[in-house]
Amino acid sequence: MRQAAGKHSFERKPNILRLQKAKRRRQRAVIDQKWRCAGNVEDFEQLDTFHRAIRPYLCLAQVLGMMPLANVLSLNPQMVTFQLCSSGTCFSVIFLLLGGVKTIRLATKLFQGGINAKNIVGVVFFSSGMIICLNFICLARCWNRLIVPWSGIDIIMLFPPYTTTKHSLRRKLLITGCSLGCLTLVEHCLYYASSYYNYRMQIVHCQTNVTDIPFSGYMKREFADIFEMLPYNPIFIFYAFFLNGTFTFIWNFMDMFIILISIGLAERFQQLANRVLALAYQHVPDAVWHEIRMHHILLCELMDLVETNISHIVLLSCLNNIYFICNKLLTIFTKLRYPVNYAYFWYSLLFLLGRTCAVFLCASRIHEASLLPLTVLTMVPSDYWTEEVQRFTHQIRSQYIGLSGLSLFHLTRRSFFGMMTTLVYYEFMLLQLDAKSNKNDLPALCV
Amino acid sequence: MRQAAGKHSFERKPNILRLQKAKRRRQRAVIDQKWRCAGNVEDFEQLDTFHRAIRPYLCLAQVLGMMPLANVLSLNPQMVTFQLCSSGTCFSVIFLLLGGVKTIRLATKLFQGGINAKNIVGVVFFSSGMIICLNFICLARCWNRLIVPWSGIDIIMLFPPYTTTKHSLRRKLLITGCSLGCLTLVEHCLYYASSYYNYRMQIVHCQTNVTDIPFSGYMKREFADIFEMLPYNPIFIFYAFFLNGTFTFIWNFMDMFIILISIGLAERFQQLANRVLALAYQHVPDAVWHEIRMHHILLCELMDLVETNISHIVLLSCLNNIYFICNKLLTIFTKLRYPVNYAYFWYSLLFLLGRTCAVFLCASRIHEASLLPLTVLTMVPSDYWTEEVQRFTHQIRSQYIGLSGLSLFHLTRRSFFGMMTTLVYYEFMLLQLDAKSNKNDLPALCV
Amino acid sequence: MRQAAGKHSFERKPNILRLQKAKRRRQRAVIDQKWRCAGNVEDFEQLDTFHRAIRPYLCLAQVLGMMPLANVLSLNPQMVTFQLCSSGTCFSVIFLLLGGVKTIRLATKLFQGGINAKNIVGVVFFSSGMIICLNFICLARCWNRLIVPWSGIDIIMLFPPYTTTKHSLRRKLLITGCSLGCLTLVEHCLYYASSYYNYRMQIVHCQTNVTDIPFSGYMKREFADIFEMLPYNPIFIFYAFFLNGTFTFIWNFMDMFIILISIGLAERFQQLANRVLALAYQHVPDAVWHEIRMHHILLCELMDLVETNISHIVLLSCLNNIYFICNKLLTIFTKLRYPVNYAYFWYSLLFLLGRTCAVFLCASRIHEASLLPLTVLTMVPSDYWTEEVQRFTHQIRSQYIGLSGLSLFHLTRRSFFGMMTTLVYYEFMLLQLDAKSNKNDLPALCV
Amino acid sequence: MRQAAGKHSFERKPNILRLQKAKRRRQRAVIDQKWRCAGNVEDFEQLDTFHRAIRPYLCLAQVLGMMPLANVLSLNPQMVTFQLCSSGTCFSVIFLLLGGVKTIRLATKLFQGGINAKNIVGVVFFSSGMIICLNFICLARCWNRLIVPWSGIDIIMLFPPYTTTKHSLRRKLLITGCSLGCLTLVEHCLYYASSYYNYRMQIVHCQTNVTDIPFSGYMKREFADIFEMLPYNPIFIFYAFFLNGTFTFIWNFMDMFIILISIGLAERFQQLANRVLALAYQHVPDAVWHEIRMHHILLCELMDLVETNISHIVLLSCLNNIYFICNKLLTIFTKLRYPVNYAYFWYSLLFLLGRTCAVFLCASRIHEASLLPLTVLTMVPSDYWTEEVQRFTHQIRSQYIGLSGLSLFHLTRRSFFGMMTTLVYYEFMLLQLDAKSNKNDLPALCV
Repeated sequence: MRQAAGKHSFERKPNILRLQKAKRRRQRAVIDQKWRCAGNVEDFEQLDTFHRAIRPYLCLAQVLGMMPLANVLSLNPQMVTFQLCSSGTCFSVIFLLLGGVKTIRLATKLFQGGINAKNIVGVVFFSSGMIICLNFICLARCWNRLIVPWSGIDIIMLFPPYTTTKHSLRRKLLITGCSLGCLTLVEHCLYYASSYYNYRMQIVHCQTNVTDIPFSGYMKREFADIFEMLPYNPIFIFYAFFLNGTFTFIWNFMDMFIILISIGLAERFQQLANRVLALAYQHVPDAVWHEIRMHHILLCELMDLVETNISHIVLLSCLNNIYFICNKLLTIFTKLRYPVNYAYFWYSLLFLLGRTCAVFLCASRIHEASLLPLTVLTMVPSDYWTEEVQRFTHQIRSQYIGLSGLSLFHLTRRSFFGMMTTLVYYEFMLLQLDAKSNKNDLPALCV
Repeated sequence: MRQAAGKHSFERKPNILRLQKAKRRRQRAVIDQKWRCAGNVEDFEQLDTFHRAIRPYLCLAQVLGMMPLANVLSLNPQMVTFQLCSSGTCFSVIFLLLGGVKTIRLATKLFQGGINAKNIVGVVFFSSGMIICLNFICLARCWNRLIVPWSGIDIIMLFPPYTTTKHSLRRKLLITGCSLGCLTLVEHCLYYASSYYNYRMQIVHCQTNVTDIPFSGYMKREFADIFEMLPYNPIFIFYAFFLNGTFTFIWNFMDMFIILISIGLAERFQQLANRVLALAYQHVPDAVWHEIRMHHILLCELMDLVETNISHIVLLSCLNNIYFICNKLLTIFTKLRYPVNYAYFWYSLLFLLGRTCAVFLCASRIHEASLLPLTVLTMVPSDYWTEEVQRFTHQIRSQYIGLSGLSLFHLTRRSFFGMMTTLVYYEFMLLQLDAKSNKNDLPALCV
Repeated sequence: MRQAAGKHSFERKPNILRLQKAKRRRQRAVIDQKWRCAGNVEDFEQLDTFHRAIRPYLCLAQVLGMMPLANVLSLNPQMVTFQLCSSGTCFSVIFLLLGGVKTIRLATKLFQGGINAKNIVGVVFFSSGMIICLNFICLARCWNRLIVPWSGIDIIMLFPPYTTTKHSLRRKLLITGCSLGCLTLVEHCLYYASSYYNYRMQIVHCQTNVTDIPFSGYMKREFADIFEMLPYNPIFIFYAFFLNGTFTFIWNFMDMFIILISIGLAERFQQLANRVLALAYQHVPDAVWHEIRMHHILLCELMDLVETNISHIVLLSCLNNIYFICNKLLTIFTKLRYPVNYAYFWYSLLFLLGRTCAVFLCASRIHEASLLPLTVLTMVPSDYWTEEVQRFTHQIRSQYIGLSGLSLFHLTRRSFFGMMTTLVYYEFMLLQLDAKSNKNDLPALCV
Repeated sequence: MRQAAGKHSFERKPNILRLQKAKRRRQRAVIDQKWRCAGNVEDFEQLDTFHRAIRPYLCLAQVLGMMPLANVLSLNPQMVTFQLCSSGTCFSVIFLLLGGVKTIRLATKLFQGGINAKNIVGVVFFSSGMIICLNFICLARCWNRLIVPWSGIDIIMLFPPYTTTKHSLRRKLLITGCSLGCLTLVEHCLYYASSYYNYRMQIVHCQTNVTDIPFSGYMKREFADIFEMLPYNPIFIFYAFFLNGTFTFIWNFMDMFIILISIGLAERFQQLANRVLALAYQHVPDAVWHEIRMHHILLCELMDLVETNISHIVLLSCLNNIYFICNKLLTIFTKLRYPVNYAYFWYSLLFLLGRTCAVFLCASRIHEASLLPLTVLTMVPSDYWTEEVQRFTHQIRSQYIGLSGLSLFHLTRRSFFGMMTTLVYYEFMLLQLDAKSNKNDLPALCV
């Protein structure tokens, strides 16, 4: 790997990109070899890799048209690639078409009826859904370049001297995903409950001669954009619900995806920290420190790779969350008519806040885990305080390791606090403005 | 303490938690030995440990149901443990029950009468009291794990070469606690004075035929939630006053507790700094630097332990203080009727601001004290500038030592300034909004 | 270059300024020698220097009176100097006179008619144009002192061991400049289109008996300040359009200039990083590290020189951008009459935001490129980890390299995010204030 | 200076305060010796010490009762001490009495007439004057402890190898002080002009039968609090003007004092930097680096001493400036009646902003000057890169050197920018609020 010294400064160096490619080729070769050592692919399936843990979510995303990857169920991460002609791409195209039609119809209606801060929410929701979907398709194109080095590191970190954690990564991701999924489902159902109850009450109060209230009436109002064009039959009812549900899923999947990635990365930094912590009060030869430091660099490079590929999704997620939280906060003092409206409003606000909080806290755990080895490093006695240890200490201290939104902000507890402070301050200003006007009566029920 | 090199990287390491446990066991053993050296427990009582200094406050907190600890008066910190079946737990359960009933009754009344930013204060006060109490019960469960290592460090730092300060830690904590207690008492009395005077004046002005104003009338209005259910007799009068007093105490105890902990920690960092400062212009052997650095690491570990256990209380305290300050600021331009109302309003606002300021300044002293040794370290001549000194310098410079609120923000002078700036800015906005409306007349006295 | 040790502390040192001068003289000598090595000036012209790339823009700026430089087309950067008696200075004086007259006339009209936040925009636009022009004339005076060392560094970095990038600097600057120029042109045309359509529609609707609408009427209203004084003839029509166009160009040139400078600097830091990246996994002799570090210092000194000379322009640019963005945001909820008004408003707002974003992102690339060598430095094996490498690492880590606005703020992604957050927050406050008043009807068309 | 090693860790160390005292005694001895070397006191007077430069301002401050120092004109800084029984103290007591009476009378009037955001300004002005005066008396008590070590460092830095700057410190301070004094005087005169013109115009317009307007009428209204108690005669006219003038002077002296101190400190850091810059491209023996580093530490200690003694004045100054700027900004949209009112309003607002800006920029120059040696340090060749140079580099990089307001904020360009941003943002909010109300007509002239 080393060339003769002195030569390099006189010749024209080959392009840096070619060097990077060579490096990546080397990495793949190393992983392939490791796999061969790991026996066969069935053995590999036993390993608690991130690829195995995230696979169910990739499948789900593929079905909903977000990540058009071929061989998504394959045990071998190298097989999971983006292919233009695959079922995934097909799903994506269909979804984008249907979603695009819906968004355009909503936007047209909005411009015809006059735009304001309140009725714009629906269009923002659907168009942000489209943008999220496009971003994930972009991510799918680079997924292979991301998951192969990650699996390489996973293989290193799943064998001794690294210890595994009590619960497998797969289980952690499953529990996190399912909990978030359930909470999302409840929010989605509450939305329908609240809107149906409003519809029902309006009919009861305003149309005195009505005896039974048909469900179809509700459907025709809720999905006006669809049933104005298409006939009312079970297929299109399913279609209407499905499209709404898919967009809600996409909207939540983005945050969930950041959380899952963060858990995966934090786990590896935690394992490295555990290895270092286990070396406390022991004499550690320099070669071991070197190996640990090289693994730390590997992890940092993986972190950079992930950061490059998902930082636009992180930015999108934060903007999205802030917009919807602010939108909810704007109407926090508006009187609502029925308890179910209050239930939906507060559940959905708390759900939004909780989800945003979860994204920030999970992502900040990566940085916190990366700082853990420092405690042991300060305890290394002077006799064993070599250049390696010193460089490792400097490296951990001076680098910032963590996710960011296009480098505009980092996902830390501190920036979460700043965001919350601004929101609370905004709310206090609204409170004061509201106290001055005092005209928040309910609008007439029957127009 | 050191094992054969080379072995450790091939064997599966025992769980990290077991290692931590072993370390803690070792620490306890060291402390036990130190105690034996210190003669007997009566001698130990002579030492100015933090345990001795905080004990009176723990007793008080136990009686009021906040910290259910067994053997709280014991001279030996290892005996002060959380026990499910003890008088402390009993007090806590009773307090939580009574407080819960009061809070629920107030909340019910509030929801019936219509909620707004002003009448919500009472419910927030009582429910935050309940939350504080639950947080302190959590702390009580970990208290033993906190005070034992702390006492171990205390024993190290109370003997030469460490010098003691002019005033004992016990005296400092007593003076701080008593002053805060008196100020709280004045605030509590002013509250009753203000509310009683209002009641009296309203009777005098509105009910022309009344000759004497019974005290019971005031009581029945002030404690409406109690005397609507229970008969008016001395026991329940005491009960009403006691419950109000306890909640006020809890509310103040939280801030006081953070201040006391900060004083205790800052004292130890100051002692370490004093030891280093005394070494200025002297030749110091490397072994001494190593010992000092190890003691610094011990202190940092103690700091981490404290941080882990009370950072949720710090967050709660700051949120609480900000809410009540903002609430006061909202009504700062409201005209009041009598001088006693003004006296109560301004005293309580300044008391709140002063208390918040005290929390931040005391906590920031920890960090300031931890930086003091740097001056001497820069003066060490080059001949004696060893690896130890260099590592000590790096360690002090790069680590942040201090309390934080769940890592969301640190208790520094700078963050205090940020908070105050935001409050002042908020106030200026209110001022401007207020100048535009100009309808702050007094409401009618007799409704 | 080195003097006898021990002497220097007893003699009075010559003035520091003289030393700096000597250093600069030395640098010039080195560059001259390099040039001689590079054969003749025609060969030099083949080199992709920053001087060659920026030259077209300097010419343009000279014609419009912004940068009065002599020999601006010269191949030799040392010839491009500021001269009091030159065509450039002449252009500048004429422009300043004409611009000054226009600004004063507009200001007089404004003061006579009553000043408010809306009609002040025009005067701010023209006076900021004058200030920008004066700032660029200041820069022109120091241009020689800036471009000569820059060319010196260029000559070093355009030969091996440094590699050149795929696209030449000249091409990059040309593409950037042309794109920005086109976008500006579209904005300028849309402005006329919008204002002419408004004029036309007003005539059509309000003056029923008018059959044809003369263009001269529009001209006389749009350039009221000019045609009230001067007769309406082609020369003065050209003059009116030319002056408006020039001021719009100046206003955009400032931001474009910062972007071009940033691209030029980032290119050089990127080249240095590429050289270091190509050394990964190789044994590198200490002399090479020393050379690279010295080149890094040279680049940092160039950065300082640039920073000193254009930081006032950076500040001006940011203030200017923020003022015009805020001004647009203030009227974002105002209803407009015709689609062309909407087109102009939104195009110009997005153009402003995009331009500001481009300034910050391009400038922040300098800092990002300067950090790239760190990855390789952490990988240097311990055997080759010398003092040189360590110092280089420290140097890169501890210095902040990038443009700033008079040191008041740095042009980073983070500060851009802060700026955007504040703007969005401001907009949300406006939204809320607006929702309270609800009186944004269109004013009467015919007054 | 060094004691036997090993001993120090077994014996109880003497109190740290005694050590500090010993150190200060040593410093005094060194300075005394230096003075003796400098021949006699007359020679010493020739030296451009900070003591000589600040002396005229101290005299002025003493006469106006702000700094009660004995022997303020003495050439020897050790003679300038705080004495309870001196003419300075006498002046201070008289001033505080007269000022106190004025403040109390104004406050009483205010409370009687009803308090609001506008009429409170006068009372704030006079009471802040009193607080400033008390703070300076505090400073006077510690002045001796500050100026003696400062003079010691001055003596070191006024002889070779340190070079002196082109203009003497005395001249710089004189020019700064005189310019600020003149600007203050203009502001003070404009205030009288504006208020007298208002008075005159009101008489002319409202009292039709008046032929001549007596000056005494104006005096009796302007100084109502004085001439309601005392007869109208020249002595009391002088007294009225004198008191107003003194308070205005005090209010400006605070900012001027911070600026002067900052210039003095920045000068010394600049000299140190110049010495280091002169060593560029030379071989420098380690002993010289050690000497420079020790002088840097001396300067840092002086900085700490100054910081401890004037940080409360810095905080007071900033709060004061922000209050008066915000107060002016609140009324920025209020229409005024006469041009002289506009002249006074805008001059005084710009003067306030300029003064605040000057304080921040001068203070931030200290930090900027302290960073200058870094450029040379990075250029030191590897062969001469010793521990001393490395430690010096680390020292400069890691320490923050500069003035702060009680550690709550630092006086940097960045914090100034933050302050200005907040003010501008506040102003934009006001602008928007104002645009909504639109009722800023002039109040009736004749009430």
